[in-house]
Amino acid sequence: MRTVNAYAAPSATEPLVKTTITRRDLGPKDVEIDIAYAGICHSDIHTVRGEWGEIQYPQVVGHEIVGHVSAVGSDVTKHRVGDRVGVGCMVNSCGECEQCVAGQEQYCLKGNIQTYAGVDPADGSITQGGYSEAVVVNEDFVLRVPESLDIEKVAPLLCAGITLYSPLHHWGAGPGKKVAVVGLGGLGHMGVKIAAALGAEVTVLSQTTAKEQDSLRFGAVAHHATKDPETFERLRGSFDLIINTVSAKIPLASYLGLLKVDGALVNVGAPSEPLEVPVFSLIGARRTFAGSNIGGIAETQEMLDFCAEHGILPETELISADRINEAYERVLSSDVRYRFVIDTATLA
Amino acid sequence: MRTVNAYAAPSATEPLVKTTITRRDLGPKDVEIDIAYAGICHSDIHTVRGEWGEIQYPQVVGHEIVGHVSAVGSDVTKHRVGDRVGVGCMVNSCGECEQCVAGQEQYCLKGNIQTYAGVDPADGSITQGGYSEAVVVNEDFVLRVPESLDIEKVAPLLCAGITLYSPLHHWGAGPGKKVAVVGLGGLGHMGVKIAAALGAEVTVLSQTTAKEQDSLRFGAVAHHATKDPETFERLRGSFDLIINTVSAKIPLASYLGLLKVDGALVNVGAPSEPLEVPVFSLIGARRTFAGSNIGGIAETQEMLDFCAEHGILPETELISADRINEAYERVLSSDVRYRFVIDTATLA
Repeated sequence: MRTVNAYAAPSATEPLVKTTITRRDLGPKDVEIDIAYAGICHSDIHTVRGEWGEIQYPQVVGHEIVGHVSAVGSDVTKHRVGDRVGVGCMVNSCGECEQCVAGQEQYCLKGNIQTYAGVDPADGSITQGGYSEAVVVNEDFVLRVPESLDIEKVAPLLCAGITLYSPLHHWGAGPGKKVAVVGLGGLGHMGVKIAAALGAEVTVLSQTTAKEQDSLRFGAVAHHATKDPETFERLRGSFDLIINTVSAKIPLASYLGLLKVDGALVNVGAPSEPLEVPVFSLIGARRTFAGSNIGGIAETQEMLDFCAEHGILPETELISADRINEAYERVLSSDVRYRFVIDTATLA
Repeated sequence: MRTVNAYAAPSATEPLVKTTITRRDLGPKDVEIDIAYAGICHSDIHTVRGEWGEIQYPQVVGHEIVGHVSAVGSDVTKHRVGDRVGVGCMVNSCGECEQCVAGQEQYCLKGNIQTYAGVDPADGSITQGGYSEAVVVNEDFVLRVPESLDIEKVAPLLCAGITLYSPLHHWGAGPGKKVAVVGLGGLGHMGVKIAAALGAEVTVLSQTTAKEQDSLRFGAVAHHATKDPETFERLRGSFDLIINTVSAKIPLASYLGLLKVDGALVNVGAPSEPLEVPVFSLIGARRTFAGSNIGGIAETQEMLDFCAEHGILPETELISADRINEAYERVLSSDVRYRFVIDTATLA
């Protein structure tokens, strides 16, 4: 066991505080990673505040983790000491169900083991996330991070990147396809960059036109304000695919109307309230409303390699660990362009 | 112009009455059909009562039409006098948009022309449906009805049949797939027969077990009562595809939970109220909620040929025209097994 510095939530209602946690001894298939950077995801905030269900405290969150391998177990074959690696939202899964066998560990029928607030099958402990100096993870859930990707910025690809890449890939975003991304935040801005690199024609649907220049810079061909009702008239029947990154309740009927026949609206944002679907909007054009959750391990590696090939990185603001609580408030007020990354060297 | 007997709704609130209507002179591409039988679809009732929007009266409904060709226009090549033919929900479409070109006239981007209560592009009149002695239809929207299918029973294939065949086909119902049909009425019972003939393993989800023997007779391997909450526990994660034929508001979260990863729940019933979709149910297993509307003309022909090949016919109760109003009340109280067919000879 190794004791490392970390930032943890002591309860659902208190700010995160500096503390120490222990990491398990290396099992034969384990990789120990010295964490260099960890992204802040909106999910981290929902989780520590108990908004997605009760959790045990103290809890360290963070599932956008990048660092270097510092030690490997006796049977590890996929990674070596010194390798630049990453960990995303999962650290294990059953490995045996049809979903795991198909490389879709994110949909493991027994439930995958989340990087934080999960129950670690190795020792029954609660998993602790990336706002810490080191982590021990089964090698199958450790990704190779290409050297060409700036290590200071790359962490958010491990959650925000794959969360957008997977549905874009699954629903066929590419040349000749018109894709809209709803919401230009941490998730949305990755969606624009990746969809554009996949060859799709990308439109951003954002509340206002404030971020229009950013949209165009990230590769979109158009940016429309959803506060303007004319947007929904003008763009009626335009898109093959809409990825909705907004976690709030949106007027789905209006958005479904923007889809072509056979178009799909895919939610990656997870509003706590149900969304109201007017069935006529679906039936009239064989539209689908779907959801997608991160991506499998092989697909996450594919995404990292794709981002390296196309020079895709998130827009980040680097912070020291003592600014995590302030960063949370800024995330909640959408005052971040577009993702905070914690320099975990500041935990020392 | 030809004057024919028909049964029409004089207003949204009065019973249907016997009347006469005129059918247009044959255009060069038109086929005149002497109607033998017409099915009663729930949509007929919604339409004449103005529940799906205001219409003009008097209105003749009926879009499950079977009969014989009695005359053809000068340029007709697809049908000959004496042929056994059918007409479904559409009598025309633009023919030029990408959907029409793709054989998906049901999703014509300019809106197809409905068999009744539509505006006929031939003369600007309101289209009048199948509760009548004859109809004149563009040959491209006239289907060949295989001789092996009992003409007294075949009419409901033109709407109920294709409404189920199209989504079953589109979403890949076949060997190795588990399909559930929600609701065992006019639509649902066709779904069971067709899905079973396609090779899928079919389960019926009905309010009670009252129709269980029918389900099994139609080809289902199981029938479960949705009134029993245990049904939703027991069948959790079971189905690749669920076709929902119920037009009322159902607890969608429970039904979505019955889908496997990547499963689809497809509504062919069109409730007037929006359905509430819990987004977590979709995201957690990349499920989709979709809608489907009848089928294209070529696909409808394919369905008729498929039904002939597999000996599939609806279960029908034949009535004389003077019993249409009584039949409507029985449809509304689900007292029909499973589709009324009007013997239009009784209009004489």
